[in-house]
Amino acid sequence: MAKRKNSKPRPPANSLWGGRFEAGPAEAMARINASIGFDWRLARADIEASRAHCRMLVKQRIVSARDGRAILKGLDAVWGEIEGGAFRFRPALEDIHMNLEARLTALIGEAGGRLHTARSRNDQVATDFRLWVRDAIDRLDGGLRGLQAALIARAEEHAATVMPGFTHLQTAQPVTLGHHLLAYVEMLGRDRGRLADARARVNECPLGAAALAGTSFPIDRKATARALGFARPMANSMDAVSARDFALEFLAACAITAGHLSRLAEELVIWSSERFGFVRLSDAFTTGSSIMPQKRNPDGAELVRAKAGRVTGALLALAVVMKGLPLAYAKDMQEDKEPVFDAADTLALCLEVTAGMIGDMAVDAEAMGAAAEEAHATATDLADWLVREAGLSFRRAHGVAGRIVRLAEKAGRRLAEVPLEDMRRIEPGITADVFSVLGAEHSVASRASEGGTAPRRVRAAIAAARRRHLGSRSGTRR
Amino acid sequence: MAKRKNSKPRPPANSLWGGRFEAGPAEAMARINASIGFDWRLARADIEASRAHCRMLVKQRIVSARDGRAILKGLDAVWGEIEGGAFRFRPALEDIHMNLEARLTALIGEAGGRLHTARSRNDQVATDFRLWVRDAIDRLDGGLRGLQAALIARAEEHAATVMPGFTHLQTAQPVTLGHHLLAYVEMLGRDRGRLADARARVNECPLGAAALAGTSFPIDRKATARALGFARPMANSMDAVSARDFALEFLAACAITAGHLSRLAEELVIWSSERFGFVRLSDAFTTGSSIMPQKRNPDGAELVRAKAGRVTGALLALAVVMKGLPLAYAKDMQEDKEPVFDAADTLALCLEVTAGMIGDMAVDAEAMGAAAEEAHATATDLADWLVREAGLSFRRAHGVAGRIVRLAEKAGRRLAEVPLEDMRRIEPGITADVFSVLGAEHSVASRASEGGTAPRRVRAAIAAARRRHLGSRSGTRR
Amino acid sequence: MAKRKNSKPRPPANSLWGGRFEAGPAEAMARINASIGFDWRLARADIEASRAHCRMLVKQRIVSARDGRAILKGLDAVWGEIEGGAFRFRPALEDIHMNLEARLTALIGEAGGRLHTARSRNDQVATDFRLWVRDAIDRLDGGLRGLQAALIARAEEHAATVMPGFTHLQTAQPVTLGHHLLAYVEMLGRDRGRLADARARVNECPLGAAALAGTSFPIDRKATARALGFARPMANSMDAVSARDFALEFLAACAITAGHLSRLAEELVIWSSERFGFVRLSDAFTTGSSIMPQKRNPDGAELVRAKAGRVTGALLALAVVMKGLPLAYAKDMQEDKEPVFDAADTLALCLEVTAGMIGDMAVDAEAMGAAAEEAHATATDLADWLVREAGLSFRRAHGVAGRIVRLAEKAGRRLAEVPLEDMRRIEPGITADVFSVLGAEHSVASRASEGGTAPRRVRAAIAAARRRHLGSRSGTRR
Amino acid sequence: MAKRKNSKPRPPANSLWGGRFEAGPAEAMARINASIGFDWRLARADIEASRAHCRMLVKQRIVSARDGRAILKGLDAVWGEIEGGAFRFRPALEDIHMNLEARLTALIGEAGGRLHTARSRNDQVATDFRLWVRDAIDRLDGGLRGLQAALIARAEEHAATVMPGFTHLQTAQPVTLGHHLLAYVEMLGRDRGRLADARARVNECPLGAAALAGTSFPIDRKATARALGFARPMANSMDAVSARDFALEFLAACAITAGHLSRLAEELVIWSSERFGFVRLSDAFTTGSSIMPQKRNPDGAELVRAKAGRVTGALLALAVVMKGLPLAYAKDMQEDKEPVFDAADTLALCLEVTAGMIGDMAVDAEAMGAAAEEAHATATDLADWLVREAGLSFRRAHGVAGRIVRLAEKAGRRLAEVPLEDMRRIEPGITADVFSVLGAEHSVASRASEGGTAPRRVRAAIAAARRRHLGSRSGTRR
Repeated sequence: MAKRKNSKPRPPANSLWGGRFEAGPAEAMARINASIGFDWRLARADIEASRAHCRMLVKQRIVSARDGRAILKGLDAVWGEIEGGAFRFRPALEDIHMNLEARLTALIGEAGGRLHTARSRNDQVATDFRLWVRDAIDRLDGGLRGLQAALIARAEEHAATVMPGFTHLQTAQPVTLGHHLLAYVEMLGRDRGRLADARARVNECPLGAAALAGTSFPIDRKATARALGFARPMANSMDAVSARDFALEFLAACAITAGHLSRLAEELVIWSSERFGFVRLSDAFTTGSSIMPQKRNPDGAELVRAKAGRVTGALLALAVVMKGLPLAYAKDMQEDKEPVFDAADTLALCLEVTAGMIGDMAVDAEAMGAAAEEAHATATDLADWLVREAGLSFRRAHGVAGRIVRLAEKAGRRLAEVPLEDMRRIEPGITADVFSVLGAEHSVASRASEGGTAPRRVRAAIAAARRRHLGSRSGTRR
Repeated sequence: MAKRKNSKPRPPANSLWGGRFEAGPAEAMARINASIGFDWRLARADIEASRAHCRMLVKQRIVSARDGRAILKGLDAVWGEIEGGAFRFRPALEDIHMNLEARLTALIGEAGGRLHTARSRNDQVATDFRLWVRDAIDRLDGGLRGLQAALIARAEEHAATVMPGFTHLQTAQPVTLGHHLLAYVEMLGRDRGRLADARARVNECPLGAAALAGTSFPIDRKATARALGFARPMANSMDAVSARDFALEFLAACAITAGHLSRLAEELVIWSSERFGFVRLSDAFTTGSSIMPQKRNPDGAELVRAKAGRVTGALLALAVVMKGLPLAYAKDMQEDKEPVFDAADTLALCLEVTAGMIGDMAVDAEAMGAAAEEAHATATDLADWLVREAGLSFRRAHGVAGRIVRLAEKAGRRLAEVPLEDMRRIEPGITADVFSVLGAEHSVASRASEGGTAPRRVRAAIAAARRRHLGSRSGTRR
Repeated sequence: MAKRKNSKPRPPANSLWGGRFEAGPAEAMARINASIGFDWRLARADIEASRAHCRMLVKQRIVSARDGRAILKGLDAVWGEIEGGAFRFRPALEDIHMNLEARLTALIGEAGGRLHTARSRNDQVATDFRLWVRDAIDRLDGGLRGLQAALIARAEEHAATVMPGFTHLQTAQPVTLGHHLLAYVEMLGRDRGRLADARARVNECPLGAAALAGTSFPIDRKATARALGFARPMANSMDAVSARDFALEFLAACAITAGHLSRLAEELVIWSSERFGFVRLSDAFTTGSSIMPQKRNPDGAELVRAKAGRVTGALLALAVVMKGLPLAYAKDMQEDKEPVFDAADTLALCLEVTAGMIGDMAVDAEAMGAAAEEAHATATDLADWLVREAGLSFRRAHGVAGRIVRLAEKAGRRLAEVPLEDMRRIEPGITADVFSVLGAEHSVASRASEGGTAPRRVRAAIAAARRRHLGSRSGTRR
Repeated sequence: MAKRKNSKPRPPANSLWGGRFEAGPAEAMARINASIGFDWRLARADIEASRAHCRMLVKQRIVSARDGRAILKGLDAVWGEIEGGAFRFRPALEDIHMNLEARLTALIGEAGGRLHTARSRNDQVATDFRLWVRDAIDRLDGGLRGLQAALIARAEEHAATVMPGFTHLQTAQPVTLGHHLLAYVEMLGRDRGRLADARARVNECPLGAAALAGTSFPIDRKATARALGFARPMANSMDAVSARDFALEFLAACAITAGHLSRLAEELVIWSSERFGFVRLSDAFTTGSSIMPQKRNPDGAELVRAKAGRVTGALLALAVVMKGLPLAYAKDMQEDKEPVFDAADTLALCLEVTAGMIGDMAVDAEAMGAAAEEAHATATDLADWLVREAGLSFRRAHGVAGRIVRLAEKAGRRLAEVPLEDMRRIEPGITADVFSVLGAEHSVASRASEGGTAPRRVRAAIAAARRRHLGSRSGTRR
């Protein structure tokens, strides 16, 4: 086998795995290979997992009590350096695991080398990453709950504030702003449920799978799982080191949530446009223009809307990475962390910004109410009246109401301004009582079916939402 | 307002909603607008939902008992036509809802028009689609269970069949084929869990939300929800018609599952290549070449691998559709069905094909075993022996083993063929006992930690997997 | 090798490649494997390519003139059956190539079997598919040109129609509708350019690559390439059968175009909302509601907006399929056609619908103009005046204008209604001349820089756009 | 309008656009809004564009010569600070444009404020970003060319090295390694062509579009375009600030290229597995295991394979962002830069790593050659011989060859080892001459059609590839 050499001198082989290597990595290889630039964020999880692993090794008499004490003390010291900002992460040591172990060994000598007994970076990184994702889920659950609280507070304030309900961005029927905001509380509740379900699946412990096959040391996997708060050890060692569906599921949950936020953000952008004028975002979430002095741009909302792209991109990036990967660990999986870190950070920020915008936006209830009286928003009420009071089938009533709307439109009138005789010419069964249902307030109050927009329903929904969503951690209870 | 006209004559306005329209749709509009080409698949769900709605309307005295009977009889007749293949779906009627209602009204007259009281196509389609997705989840759960059963059966057969375990597609440590296959049983178990969780979120009833605001008719949403097997009515009417996160969650679960299948498929492609020769797919899942007479192509596995792209594409398609959509219903959402239908069909087919391939592939245990003896697959066993028997720290043991591997490689020998004295020159603590751990069989047997590849562990895992995965419907129990 | 059997009886092995197969495919395998359900659309391309291949084989004396005549006549007959609707596509024959060849051989006997000399389905499908994509590009170029023509026509009509120009959906500066529409003409021009560039790369001929290695028959690849209108044969036989970047590039170009259409569609949705009231889509592209009689829903625009998801999903689907596929042909690539077919059909329909909507929408120029006078849209003009006439730096002028806007806002006045003395209190350099720049008409006329919105610039841009985009096929010339 | 306040004290309003703002951004808003964390990479482009803009303003007498000199000198000073590492980027100033302008004004006083005359951040950022993308394209073109050179060099070395050509990862026909590597040279050539085409579309100048409408100052857009090396000014000011298709096209080109690299990487992973043993990656691109001392993991190849996910994710992220955005600039577009920066960096690194791996991998020509003699790789040669020498139609020949393969397989023989009489029993027309085509070397030599794998064709292709791809910048010439 003829062999070609790169011309540049290269560093010596890696001290932790380089036993049979003659030379270290090429410079470009070092750059593409090193993960310490991002996986330093696993430091705390890695230390915790090492502590649990060490204690178990001692308990199982795989490592001596003396060495165990040295390791635990050393880990404390390393963590102290990290927290104190004194730790120097070194790209030449590739990843967080080797950075920490090298420092540990530098501090306590050969005992440090015993910590890696009965484990591998493969199960180690899977453990660390699951711990990180679990924490991220808990943080995001808090952020979601916070946004729900902000929405519920504004919903309560506006339980009876009438606005046009849109379908196709056309005025459909009057609703209340409180009702509209509660729709998002529901979406976010399901988002929390998805994260809670993902948490249950992430919360199994890979530690002890070693490289892929398990180990010949008499380890106690239940002990390490328990110590780290996992529900149980993962059942199959190859699965333990190969699985990244927990990360994909987390990203999918984040992407769906980001999609919900993008919908709310779009509404804020539209509502705060001068043409709508329904809300005014505060200075705190608005920016100006470098050229147009009059501008108040809803940048916060636009950025939240855009971030749905970023989070969806993160999901797809990892889906592409994992497609067609044979078992067990492959280096491709190193690409799992950045999308997850970025999606978690992005979503947390979006939740905070959205809660801020919702919390301090000014609502122009008058403009909303006026808009709800226009555009024949109560035509359905007219049709329903025809069914209820004049005994028409809904389909016929719909047709009659449509003709009356056309009449009103041609005359440039609101529905409530069409003369009774004109209506009766279209449908003789109509009486003056019909006008009682043609106002937006009345329309809203009449939609009193379960889950409907009638203010008393909205108030009941707010109470229920408080109980269901703000009472405790899980978003799934009802 | 100056208005331009299209030159072509157009059909008259739609009879069901065209009350105030002067003309029907342009030809291209009719093509882009009509959904009956795919939403005919909702026919059964739509009829069921109409039945439940009708019964409730009668019970609540919104529709007379007589009309109710006529409607129910009419719905039976329509369903009979559909099942019998006699129903004519008409694109001019746009969608399944209007196709069915028009036929109903044609059969029973004006009473048919009363069925649409207190509902809208917006809550109707959401209800139908949720019913469809719920059924799809149940079907897919069956498919997943079937593949798990096939894997478990082959795993049992090969609980002790030694093969190389790979990381980075390099021989890492010996494992058993049974252990390897069980890794997929675990993945599929989580896939079932995801679908089960998605099912719980899909299983809420939008019916009664009407267009978006609820209705002024005294409906009983709990009754329709119960009749259709839903856990409860959705809590907010705007959310009920606007939400499609249930479809996204379903697609995400499908995409993750398809990704798992793509990994198994990739392994089948590699294992059945002549260079590996580990398995031989049956004629039933293999094709030949139109030009190369000797070919046995693993087309089944390749297509399963590829379909991960299709399902992931479906997920993205809907995520893009939903991004930034204001509430409530928008026509954009009509794009929700084709990706879901296609993903469900695709995944069901992939599960069936994969179960077939796994079930009847021929395993060349001899080739697998021989490969496991090569490539120094027991170097970790050597290192572990050094820790256990010679008292080295793992890090030192790893380095020693690495040097012995290099020695073996240069001499073109297997590890077990390196003379003891050569080993001792590297590490004097090595004794002849070391050879006891250098065979693949021994290696596998020694990995007896929980979840490890030792055959007795694999057999226990099989028993547990049967209990956990094949005992009942849900994939989430343990 | 122990072998398991599927229990169901299976059809005999395929007659065209099944020489050494003992049994045919499993039923699920037949379903996942057969492509005739969609690749029948390659029929015309396949026949054309076969004609060219046959003529070349005859010319090169690889096939006799007599056989050649029989084949050509047979191909004519087969094509006649297809055009006449008499051809029966059979899934058991898997794909379009074998369907056509089987029929040819049935018609003309053994000579039919000679057609497959020196080719394989691998180069055949690559050839057919490239021909199809080339045609699709030409069709889409026509559709794009048609939409450009519609936009230019409306732009000419509204070259001086003043409307608010938005950034962040906030009123920024007045523009003309004509100018706004021309922005899309530019985007579509680049879209055409991308397709034209993709066409050049697609337009190379794989035929003659055979399975992957070329052939030992003395074929003339330049002749077949020329006969099929390709610019040249592809240079490398393995690349010829493995490459699908042409399809990805086509899909990417489609997705970018669909994204442009989604932006225009979003604007139509917003502009036609009652709050904006800038345009009214015709009945031909609008639908009503099954429950709300007054609704005019911009379904056409919403569907066009949504289809961006579908096309982007198609792009991703194929990108995932192709990721990590080793050379040469793999069955995974069969998944290339459906996304391409669907994207091409979808985009063609979207172009047609969009051109229709643009062509016959009614513009409310009065509403647009009134809106342009509001929201301090000329604040930049004020700042520019301060720079030009009062000698302020732009930054200072921007600050002064901002303070005057705040003044106006608090007083509930338009900029042009702020008393001169109030302005002078903020900046003494202001004179009565300032009012000359505070009207929207004046503002628009003043933006006469190249590419700006001044009506005379817009008219010049229309003339240039006609020349550049409507003069001939290519969208790239300037 | 009731207004809620955030409780935290906030910084004062932005000095550059905050004229009418009462308070600065909320802390979370500041974090989501600031782009300086990544758009500092536009610093050089921003300075260059400012220089060109300033010179034009002076030439057009919009800014005095004296102020112009001060600005240019100031820009030099700012750039000096950046290059020297002394510049302090401040998040409170949001983005690169305001960071640079604020520093300029601090250095030179009020004249600095004149630079922003007749421009806006909207056209400024579009200009900067296009300059950056143009440079990135040029860098990537160099990287692609470098990888092509590496491939061509190895192809020349192995123009006649016989290896199995695979389809479906099954041995299909013998090819040469040189031929195989040249397939990638072709793909990369098209990748370069795509980038070159994208470059032409990116290379138009938005400067002078100002916020969206153009400007009333008598600017000379052709001059600034020329000064910055752009082919021309963009034709429409609204398009100029709203268009991001150039970024999407760039990302699509990158994603397609990354997909090509993922295919090559997959081959390196497979070829370097012990089962194949075709190549051995150098230590420079290989890593070891922390637990398995014998491992040589192809991490470089795996990471390149995985990065296709990252780049595809970047493309989709921006596609989602741009979907449905109304004109003109929206803050959503700030999300355009990170995916582009990351994709460009990632692809450049992947190209370098791949060129390195290809350049110094050791090829085991013996193992490749031996494999090519197995698996009946010359069955097609047998069929072709039957057509050519025995006059069978290809279809019959294919069937005969298939039966002979089956015979060989059952006997455990290579094709060339099947006794003549056994062959003649299947097809009497076979003579001893047939053995002349059953060796891999002969097979390869016989595939001498244009673009085929015959070594003389490969050598000609190498010469042509050098001319076409290495002769000059553009990858598109032939």
